[in-house]
Amino acid sequence: MRRFVIGQAKNLIDQTRRPRPRPRPHHNNIRLLSPLASDPIPVSSSRFFSDMTGSDSSSSLPVTIDSINPNVLKCEYAVRGEIVNIAQKLQDDLKINKDAYPFDEIIYCNIGNPQSLSQQPITFFREVLALCSHTALLDRDETHALFSADSIARAWKILDQIPGKATGAYSHSQGIKGLRDAIAAGIEARDGFPADPNDIFMTDGASPGVHMMMQLLISSEKDGILCPIPQYPLYSASIALHGGSLVPYYLDEASGWGLEISELKKQLEDAKSKGITVRALAVINPGNPTGQVLSEENQRDIVDFCKKEGLVLLADEVYQENVYVPDKKFHSFKKVARSMGYGEKDISIVSFQSISKGYYGECGKRGGYMEVTGFTSDVREQIYKVASVNLCSNISGQILASLVMSPPKPGDESYESYIAEKEGILSSMARRAKTLEEALNKLEGITCNRAEGAMYLFPCINLPQKAIAAAEAAKTAPDTFYCKRLLNATGIVLVPGSGFRQVPGTWHFRCTILPQEDKIPAIVNRLTEFHKSFMDEFRD
Amino acid sequence: MRRFVIGQAKNLIDQTRRPRPRPRPHHNNIRLLSPLASDPIPVSSSRFFSDMTGSDSSSSLPVTIDSINPNVLKCEYAVRGEIVNIAQKLQDDLKINKDAYPFDEIIYCNIGNPQSLSQQPITFFREVLALCSHTALLDRDETHALFSADSIARAWKILDQIPGKATGAYSHSQGIKGLRDAIAAGIEARDGFPADPNDIFMTDGASPGVHMMMQLLISSEKDGILCPIPQYPLYSASIALHGGSLVPYYLDEASGWGLEISELKKQLEDAKSKGITVRALAVINPGNPTGQVLSEENQRDIVDFCKKEGLVLLADEVYQENVYVPDKKFHSFKKVARSMGYGEKDISIVSFQSISKGYYGECGKRGGYMEVTGFTSDVREQIYKVASVNLCSNISGQILASLVMSPPKPGDESYESYIAEKEGILSSMARRAKTLEEALNKLEGITCNRAEGAMYLFPCINLPQKAIAAAEAAKTAPDTFYCKRLLNATGIVLVPGSGFRQVPGTWHFRCTILPQEDKIPAIVNRLTEFHKSFMDEFRD
Repeated sequence: MRRFVIGQAKNLIDQTRRPRPRPRPHHNNIRLLSPLASDPIPVSSSRFFSDMTGSDSSSSLPVTIDSINPNVLKCEYAVRGEIVNIAQKLQDDLKINKDAYPFDEIIYCNIGNPQSLSQQPITFFREVLALCSHTALLDRDETHALFSADSIARAWKILDQIPGKATGAYSHSQGIKGLRDAIAAGIEARDGFPADPNDIFMTDGASPGVHMMMQLLISSEKDGILCPIPQYPLYSASIALHGGSLVPYYLDEASGWGLEISELKKQLEDAKSKGITVRALAVINPGNPTGQVLSEENQRDIVDFCKKEGLVLLADEVYQENVYVPDKKFHSFKKVARSMGYGEKDISIVSFQSISKGYYGECGKRGGYMEVTGFTSDVREQIYKVASVNLCSNISGQILASLVMSPPKPGDESYESYIAEKEGILSSMARRAKTLEEALNKLEGITCNRAEGAMYLFPCINLPQKAIAAAEAAKTAPDTFYCKRLLNATGIVLVPGSGFRQVPGTWHFRCTILPQEDKIPAIVNRLTEFHKSFMDEFRD
Repeated sequence: MRRFVIGQAKNLIDQTRRPRPRPRPHHNNIRLLSPLASDPIPVSSSRFFSDMTGSDSSSSLPVTIDSINPNVLKCEYAVRGEIVNIAQKLQDDLKINKDAYPFDEIIYCNIGNPQSLSQQPITFFREVLALCSHTALLDRDETHALFSADSIARAWKILDQIPGKATGAYSHSQGIKGLRDAIAAGIEARDGFPADPNDIFMTDGASPGVHMMMQLLISSEKDGILCPIPQYPLYSASIALHGGSLVPYYLDEASGWGLEISELKKQLEDAKSKGITVRALAVINPGNPTGQVLSEENQRDIVDFCKKEGLVLLADEVYQENVYVPDKKFHSFKKVARSMGYGEKDISIVSFQSISKGYYGECGKRGGYMEVTGFTSDVREQIYKVASVNLCSNISGQILASLVMSPPKPGDESYESYIAEKEGILSSMARRAKTLEEALNKLEGITCNRAEGAMYLFPCINLPQKAIAAAEAAKTAPDTFYCKRLLNATGIVLVPGSGFRQVPGTWHFRCTILPQEDKIPAIVNRLTEFHKSFMDEFRD
C-alpha cells in the first residue's frame, strides 16, 4: 500500500485539476476553481485578462500552451497555488464587500512567512542593514543616538570587507569573501568541525541553490533524486523544471514521520530497476511540511547510505534554529559525517541555509547560502561558472546571512535585547505549535504528530466517504475540497496535503504555526467550529 | 564569410581552451592558463583545492565532470571567466609582492559594475532604502536631521503599499503591487502608452528574467533563439543551460553595428532548413558589448519582422538611460510597436530592465523587472507559476526598481541634488566614452565604433600574423592572448571578443567606460604603451 508509483501519484494529482478541452496529458494549469467562481479565474485580474481569457481570442500570438516547454507545464507549487489565488481574490473582495463573508480577514497559514503575520524583525540585523544601505549615516553624529554601538561597529566591519565599501557593486560570484569568512566561522562554532569560506556559495534564499544543484545533477529523466514524501514542493517543482525524475521515499507517519533506511533502499532499487540513475538524496531536517527532527543515529545511517550508494546528500537545513522540543537537537549532516570520520574525499554534502526561517524570518530579503563539500575541483568549477552567470546574490541578503551566522555576543551592547527578541520569538513559536497540535488532535478524525521543529503542522484527516464523494463530484482532491471549504467559511488559508504528495488514499493539510499568539485562540475556535459542521454535513 | 555556423563557432571557441586528457567534445572548463601559471589554477585557492586538484585523487566521490548535466559544461560566461580569474590571483599576490609587477592595482574594465569603480550611489535612493530597512527610524525625531523630507515621505508611501509594512515578508510572486503600479506609471510616462502593473514581473536583476523566458520557450535543441553576434554572453549561457540552439545574426561593424533585417531573414531561413524552430528574437538596445543605439525606423522593421515571423521579441533594454550622443534616443520596443498600431493581441514583447545599469548602477542590489505583453492568459499563468516557485525577488531590489522608474520630481526636496548626481554621472560617462574611443582609434590596427550608449567599447584589433601564431602556439584565441598580455603588463582587465562571439577571423575586446575620470589618462597611457610594445614585438 505504501509503495509509491510516480504515475499513480501523478494521476492522483491530476484528478485535482480541472480537465481541459485539449488532450494534453501533462498540462496542469493554475486557474481557479472554487465555489466563488464557476469559471476559471486568472491569477491576477486585469484589463489584460479580461481582454484575453483564452488562446482562441489571440490566435495570432506566437506562444501557446502547447508550444511551451513541457517541463514548465509539469511543474507545480501548491504553496502559492490554487487555494492562495482564491484567498487573494477574497481579500480583494473583502475590501469592497465587508459584510458578504462570515469573517473579516484572511489568515495566511499557507506559507512560512513570519513577518507577513506581524513577527518583528531582529533590531540589530535591521540596524546593520540600514547603515550598510546608506553609508553616509556612519559619518553623522546623530547616528549614535539612533543606532546601537555594536551595529555601527559591525557595519564598519562589513564595509571594510567589501572592496571600496561598495554595497552597490556586484560581489564575487560566491559572495563577499569577508561575509563568507563570518559564515564559515559560524558553522565551525555550531558544528565543532572546520568550515571553509571557499565552500560557501551565497544565494538569494535557499531555492536558487537547490535549482543550481538540480541543474548540475540532472541531464534527463533518467536521472533521479530521492525525495521525502511528503516533501516541500520546491523539490518536485525543481526536478520537473530540470526534466529529472523524483524518486519518492515515504516518511512513516505512524512513527512521527520517521525516515527508514529500508524504505530508502527499496525505493532506490525500484528506481534502478526502471533504468533510473539516482544521483542524490534530499533530506529536509527539521522536516517541511512534517516538522520532525531527525535523531543523530538516524542521520548517521543516512550518511552511511549515501556513502555506500554513491549519492550526493542534499541537506535542506533551513529550519536549523527551529527546534521546539527538549528531547531533540539539530545536527548538521556535515557535522554528523565528520564525526563519523568521513572527510572531503568520502562524501558529497550540500547544506542549504536561508535567512527566511529561524527566529529572524527575513523572507523578503532573499538571502541564504549553500555549503558545498566533497566535490572534485573540476565539478566545483562548473558550480562556480553557473553561479557567475547570474553574477552574485543580493548584497543585503548576503549581509543578513552573515549576521544570522554571527549574531551579537555577550558583552555587545545589543546582546541582551537580541537574546530577548530571539527567545521571545522561538518560545512563542513552541507554544503556538503545541496549542495548535493539541487543538487539532481534539478534532474528530484528525491525528497530528507534534511539530518538533520547522514552522508547520501536517495533520492527517480521516475524511468521511461522503466528503470524498463530494470532492470527486467537484473534480477536486478531498483535502483540497476540505481546504477550500475551510477558506470560504473562516478565511483561514491552508495548503492541501496533495500539494506535498502523501501516501495515496490519505489526506492531510499543512498549517503554519505563525499567526501571532493573540490570534491563536480565535483560529482554534474557527477551525473547530468549521470542522464540526463539515463533519456533521458529511458524516457517513 | 559572414555566415555563421554554430559548429564552426564552437570549434573556434574550443580552440581557446586547453585540451583535456579525456575526450569529451563539449567540455569547457574554466581553469586558468596564463604565463603566470603553467598548470591549471583553480578558481579559488583553498585547502580544498590544494587537497583535491583532480578527480583521480577523489575517485570515491559520486559526481564527476563526465556525469554532470552536459548543458552545464556547454555554458560559458567570459565576463567572469579566465581573464578575471587571473586578475583575482594577481590582485591577491599584489598584496604580498608589491614590487613584483609593473603596476600597483588591478583595474577591472571587464564588467559593467560602476560602484566597484567608485561611482557613488544616488543619495535619495539610498535614503529611502535605509528607512525601509529599519522602519523604526521613521518614528524618531533625529531622523529628520539625517534624511530628506521626500525620502521620509517616499518611505512611508512604500511601506503603506506593503501589507503590514513588512519589508521582511515574501511579497506577491510578481512583486509588491504598489511598486508595480509605480513602475507601470514610469513606463507610461516614458512611452506615452499605457502600461499595466499586472504585466510587470519583478526580478533579482535582468538575468533571472531572461532565464525564465528561456525556460519557457526552449524545450529542446530544436528550439532556437535569434541572438545578435556579438552578444552579451548571458544569452548564449542561458540558451546552453536550457538546452536550446543559439541562432546567430551578425551585427554589421562597418555600419556602426547595424542590425539588418536581411541578415535576420537569412539566419532564420538557415535555421529552419536545419529543422530548428526559432521561437524568439533577442535584441539588446542600447547594445552590449557593441554600444550602438537603434534608430526608431530600424526598430519598426524589427517589430514587423517579429510580427510576420511569429517570434517573441525579447527586448534587453537595461541600458535605456545610457545614451550619450545627441543624434540618438532610446525608444522602448513596446512603444514602437504601439505607435505602429500593434496591440496586446498582435505581438509578444518582453522588455527587461535592471537597476544595475543607467546612472544608478545598483548592481549589488539585484533588482529589475520584465514587462510581459502579448501572451495569452494560460501562458501567462505558467510564467506566474514559475515565478512563484522562487516566491519573490528581494524587496530591497523591488523598492529600488520602483525608485528608478519614479525618481524625485521638481519641487521635491531632493530633486536638485538628484538631478545634479544623475547628470554628473551620465555626462562623465559620455566624456569617458569619447576619450577612450578616440584613444583606441589612434592605436595601430585598432578601429573602434563610437559608444552611442550602454557602458562599453568593443574595438576591432587587426592583429599581426605573428601574434596570431604565438596565440596558436599558446593554445589560446588571439584576442585572449592579447588581453592576457595586457593584464600582465598593465593590470587592466578586458574581456576578449571571443567571449561574446564575433565574425570568424576578426578579433575584438570589450572595455567598460567605467573607471573614474581621473584615472582615464593613466589607463590610456598604459594601454597605448602596451599596445605599441605588443605591436613592436609581433609586427610582421
